Amino acid sequence: MKAAVVYKPDSLDVAESVKEFLLSLNVEAEVCEQSKELENYNFIVSVGGDGTILRTLQMLDECPPIFGVNTGKVGLLTHASPEDFKEKLGKAIEDMNIEEFMRIECTNGERLIALNEIALLTAVPARLVEFTVCVDGIEIEKMRGDGLLISTPIGSTAYALSTGGPIIDPRMYCVLVVPVAPFKLGWKPWVVDASRTVEVTIHNRPCLAIADGHRIVEIPPGSKLVFEKSGFPARFFKIPNRIKRITEMLRKMD
Amino acid sequence: MKAAVVYKPDSLDVAESVKEFLLSLNVEAEVCEQSKELENYNFIVSVGGDGTILRTLQMLDECPPIFGVNTGKVGLLTHASPEDFKEKLGKAIEDMNIEEFMRIECTNGERLIALNEIALLTAVPARLVEFTVCVDGIEIEKMRGDGLLISTPIGSTAYALSTGGPIIDPRMYCVLVVPVAPFKLGWKPWVVDASRTVEVTIHNRPCLAIADGHRIVEIPPGSKLVFEKSGFPARFFKIPNRIKRITEMLRKMD
Amino acid sequence: MKAAVVYKPDSLDVAESVKEFLLSLNVEAEVCEQSKELENYNFIVSVGGDGTILRTLQMLDECPPIFGVNTGKVGLLTHASPEDFKEKLGKAIEDMNIEEFMRIECTNGERLIALNEIALLTAVPARLVEFTVCVDGIEIEKMRGDGLLISTPIGSTAYALSTGGPIIDPRMYCVLVVPVAPFKLGWKPWVVDASRTVEVTIHNRPCLAIADGHRIVEIPPGSKLVFEKSGFPARFFKIPNRIKRITEMLRKMD
Amino acid sequence: MKAAVVYKPDSLDVAESVKEFLLSLNVEAEVCEQSKELENYNFIVSVGGDGTILRTLQMLDECPPIFGVNTGKVGLLTHASPEDFKEKLGKAIEDMNIEEFMRIECTNGERLIALNEIALLTAVPARLVEFTVCVDGIEIEKMRGDGLLISTPIGSTAYALSTGGPIIDPRMYCVLVVPVAPFKLGWKPWVVDASRTVEVTIHNRPCLAIADGHRIVEIPPGSKLVFEKSGFPARFFKIPNRIKRITEMLRKMD
Repeated sequence: MKAAVVYKPDSLDVAESVKEFLLSLNVEAEVCEQSKELENYNFIVSVGGDGTILRTLQMLDECPPIFGVNTGKVGLLTHASPEDFKEKLGKAIEDMNIEEFMRIECTNGERLIALNEIALLTAVPARLVEFTVCVDGIEIEKMRGDGLLISTPIGSTAYALSTGGPIIDPRMYCVLVVPVAPFKLGWKPWVVDASRTVEVTIHNRPCLAIADGHRIVEIPPGSKLVFEKSGFPARFFKIPNRIKRITEMLRKMD
Repeated sequence: MKAAVVYKPDSLDVAESVKEFLLSLNVEAEVCEQSKELENYNFIVSVGGDGTILRTLQMLDECPPIFGVNTGKVGLLTHASPEDFKEKLGKAIEDMNIEEFMRIECTNGERLIALNEIALLTAVPARLVEFTVCVDGIEIEKMRGDGLLISTPIGSTAYALSTGGPIIDPRMYCVLVVPVAPFKLGWKPWVVDASRTVEVTIHNRPCLAIADGHRIVEIPPGSKLVFEKSGFPARFFKIPNRIKRITEMLRKMD
Repeated sequence: MKAAVVYKPDSLDVAESVKEFLLSLNVEAEVCEQSKELENYNFIVSVGGDGTILRTLQMLDECPPIFGVNTGKVGLLTHASPEDFKEKLGKAIEDMNIEEFMRIECTNGERLIALNEIALLTAVPARLVEFTVCVDGIEIEKMRGDGLLISTPIGSTAYALSTGGPIIDPRMYCVLVVPVAPFKLGWKPWVVDASRTVEVTIHNRPCLAIADGHRIVEIPPGSKLVFEKSGFPARFFKIPNRIKRITEMLRKMD
Repeated sequence: MKAAVVYKPDSLDVAESVKEFLLSLNVEAEVCEQSKELENYNFIVSVGGDGTILRTLQMLDECPPIFGVNTGKVGLLTHASPEDFKEKLGKAIEDMNIEEFMRIECTNGERLIALNEIALLTAVPARLVEFTVCVDGIEIEKMRGDGLLISTPIGSTAYALSTGGPIIDPRMYCVLVVPVAPFKLGWKPWVVDASRTVEVTIHNRPCLAIADGHRIVEIPPGSKLVFEKSGFPARFFKIPNRIKRITEMLRKMD
């Protein structure tokens, strides 16, 4: 079994002790840079915060199971702390109990994939972007605003938490469409089944499309972007109770 | 084939012409009262509005497919108007293309079932009710407020539309939990998978539990109610494009 | 100087010690029932919570300054606890530093006056009330919903907190109009100057008009209610920093 | 009497006919560029939309009364159309009925003044800015988000409409403080009296401070900005019924 240990720049020392621990379990472990090569490992240990995991996922289509050692703040996606990772990681490798979460993908033009959300934001500060949203070809919304989020269930506690969206059970397969600061009186977040296709047309000015806060692509006006459930889910060592984890995270936010 | 025609009091004449039309198609049709007996028919034609359909559904566990002739206002659930029902009903019977929508059920104590939502509302006007909500045993919310809604996807455009919930694709199987006028700063609507169990404990005063706005039961303080996806879905003749129907309905609301 | 001590039923003993303390300061103090007679005292000490003060205010047009000894929970309006009232009440009487807060009044039909809000709520559970709101004769809103609040700035942290209204500085003179669970996509809380007149017409069914959660009047359909800043403000011994008090109260709510 | 006619680039022809009309009334009229010199005229006619007026106001401390001829879209601040300006402008000059609206000013560091709002927005797309808000020295909010608006009553129908703020009567003197996409569960818009001082500290990264969508200043992390009611209100020829105007504008938005 071959494991990659990736890390946030300030957490190299913890990454090294994770590697030592894995070697002691006879797992062939290496401390690695984040790259497409990570697909070739049996699993990945990410030392850092949720951001480190999101950044790693940006590199991957096929996703080996990820185990997160949290050296950051909130940690919705991580499994252990630098203090208790040996026990928890040891058990995780033994059980190999894996869970998958859907990712969302922009499937035309420049490819974008995200575990949390793809944000479309005006590229010109304080200037509204006008867009139309269609679901399976039906226009559900036309509005001007700071932007629009195409979010997954896991992402409902990320950026979408800020914009009036609901909390969505990560067990579900669906897409949350929610505007950012819409200049409009009547609007609603929409939750649509993951089998649907969401199309967004940008009308009047350039946008930034931002996947999980990390990968940024400029979109010219007039573009039509197509969003669908990705064929490449994110894979994690299982956390027993996701609802509990979410409530803990929400409590820590206050 | 045996069909029941149910009707809103002011729409008996339309109900009679629906019956005549069905007889002309050699369907054994009767104009009926809303009762449990409706389960014994092959399908039901409801003449009235969405309220008539909801009231009919209150009578039924096993649900024959329903075709709605709209003599009311909005009509999210209806299929035809008094003007065009012959063509549409004729085609619907020919195709027998049926769709199911989940219902929500209170599965302990007095039985309640709903296509839209079960509302728990304070029984004492202007006095807050305090309740705790658990999902699969995990407390997700504890608050005081006017009440709480346990809503289905179809119900997301009914009462839940008023309380900050999202629009949910009726193709999905999930439960929307959203408070009514919560006296609390931080809260969120929750969308949980239909495989989960939602438990609500009422702490301090009597509540009314109201299924689809029609059936009202008083709940004493200290009660714990358990909500689950019902084993008895509602069945309708298929409407081709539900997303389109919802957007039309939302536009008419403005 | 003549003082009345009013009390919540469970706080009679504290009320008695407040009376003893006032007598020791040569203030002519009596423990009293809540009644219109309270207008004839130089000041009132209320022993209980905010609810006790609100109930007392229901009795009064001309309002002697109120000092609140908090034996309840939140206490946005109270000045001292049973432990420290001697020091704080002593100083308050010495300084006689008074602040006024506007009350809202329903000035036609049956008279209603409130420090927090007058709530108009459907009298039939789970049945929407339809109403029109005009400001100085201009229709600002027409909607169906559970009800409508006509709130003061002080009331913005009471019922209106539950319904999407903003926090309003109690130093201001204005009226907050905000619906309760409106069945409508696009709506906004309105904050209008206290010099304006707010009229609400109830269209389709009976409502309850509820002043500060205590006084309830049934309003028949077709009624038009007129709301204005009352000529009888509530008067309190001054609390030095109202903004701070509000932030403390909001923090305690979480 | 000396009048300046300012214009949106695409509306020079209408500006010329306004000038001709004013000359025919014996008003000394000139078509001008937007500059500080405009302070020296007796009144200003702005030909364009609300944006043209906002841009003109950026140039001015002392503000001659403005009359707006609307060649744009919504026009909350304008008085007439290219079709009917002669009648309305003629009458306005005759009556010289003027109304003032408060402006908000950033009174420390680089000077910013706005009729609608000063927006503080993260300068790094998809990266949250962390800030603390104090009112008269009391911390009312600490949060991370896309940004924060410091808005006037007139501005409550501008950017603040997009962010969950209420509609505020333009007759009032107050400041609306409302976050943009706050990554926090519990928060509220605040409406504080115009006599208060609002201080915002930017903690973690550079912000853009944007006055009325036009003037942009970069603010380094660690800055504390102080906001107060400006001593230089905006002045307009009076529009008879502002509440009516707002409701018309809101209806057009849908």
